[in-house]
Amino acid sequence: MSSDYIKSVVKTVPDYPKPGIMFRDVTSVLEDHKAFSSTIDILLSQYGNMGFDKIAGTEARGFLFGAPLAIQMGVGFIPVRKPNKLPRAVISESYQLEYGTDTLEVHKDAIDKGDKVLLIDDLLATGGTISATANLIRNLGGVVEHAGFIIDLPDLGGAARLRDNGITPFAICEFEGD
Amino acid sequence: MSSDYIKSVVKTVPDYPKPGIMFRDVTSVLEDHKAFSSTIDILLSQYGNMGFDKIAGTEARGFLFGAPLAIQMGVGFIPVRKPNKLPRAVISESYQLEYGTDTLEVHKDAIDKGDKVLLIDDLLATGGTISATANLIRNLGGVVEHAGFIIDLPDLGGAARLRDNGITPFAICEFEGD
Repeated sequence: MSSDYIKSVVKTVPDYPKPGIMFRDVTSVLEDHKAFSSTIDILLSQYGNMGFDKIAGTEARGFLFGAPLAIQMGVGFIPVRKPNKLPRAVISESYQLEYGTDTLEVHKDAIDKGDKVLLIDDLLATGGTISATANLIRNLGGVVEHAGFIIDLPDLGGAARLRDNGITPFAICEFEGD
Repeated sequence: MSSDYIKSVVKTVPDYPKPGIMFRDVTSVLEDHKAFSSTIDILLSQYGNMGFDKIAGTEARGFLFGAPLAIQMGVGFIPVRKPNKLPRAVISESYQLEYGTDTLEVHKDAIDKGDKVLLIDDLLATGGTISATANLIRNLGGVVEHAGFIIDLPDLGGAARLRDNGITPFAICEFEGD
């Protein structure tokens, strides 16, 4: 199974969540076990031998790919969540959306100083969510240099934004024209 | 690694989310890769040879265990989500909480008639979330007879409620006194 097959499985939903947006629906990859297994295999071959200590994934779609990859790589998984979802002491990071702001949290004791942490999310758009996640992990002493995605929307400039923030992005497939 | 080890890794957070509640924090299992891998191994040995076609997991903690198990079992994963999160046509199911109601949604085209669907969630309390998920899958023609959990809180009666609904529950560990 190749990245072309995975891309062919991604369903496009026009005008969601609002008119003019072509929504790339990664749930269709999960539903197809060949495509889903292939995404994990590709991420494993990309990242399996780089010495990561932990994987962090962002609620909720980052859980769907980050958790299986953590199992395959034999490392712990750190959930990065919306406010008031994590029960132990957390640190928070707010970031700008198109309209308004959003906030992410992570457990303070989830990262040890010097941990090499791989970030995983489903889709790279502007890179705001992953930049906020990187800030959280770095504020706890973790080292963040890589982030992996299923889909990149290159027209939205997220990859350049992440590189400016010291993060090398990798995506299994790209959709232009978004 | 045994279920005793997994139980020993679950952190208990007193008085969360409100006074008097002993919150069983499954994120501590994710953070410990031996415990996390063992949960998937135990669920795989329980369910791997039962002929399931798909696994459904409920947002968001059900994603963390259901998605890796789907990879290991070689079946597709169906995310069951809060309202307005899934982009294609959905069906909805509302259910009672202690105060008020909550609603879950699933893509209409995610289940084929006769699909044998395993439900996975992190924790069995009253069983309301899993019963609502079973109703959604059954309304689409799927067959639901089993649900797997990391933790059961037997004092809350969820297992009996699920059995009354034709679902056999299995949990890796139990915490009494909740």
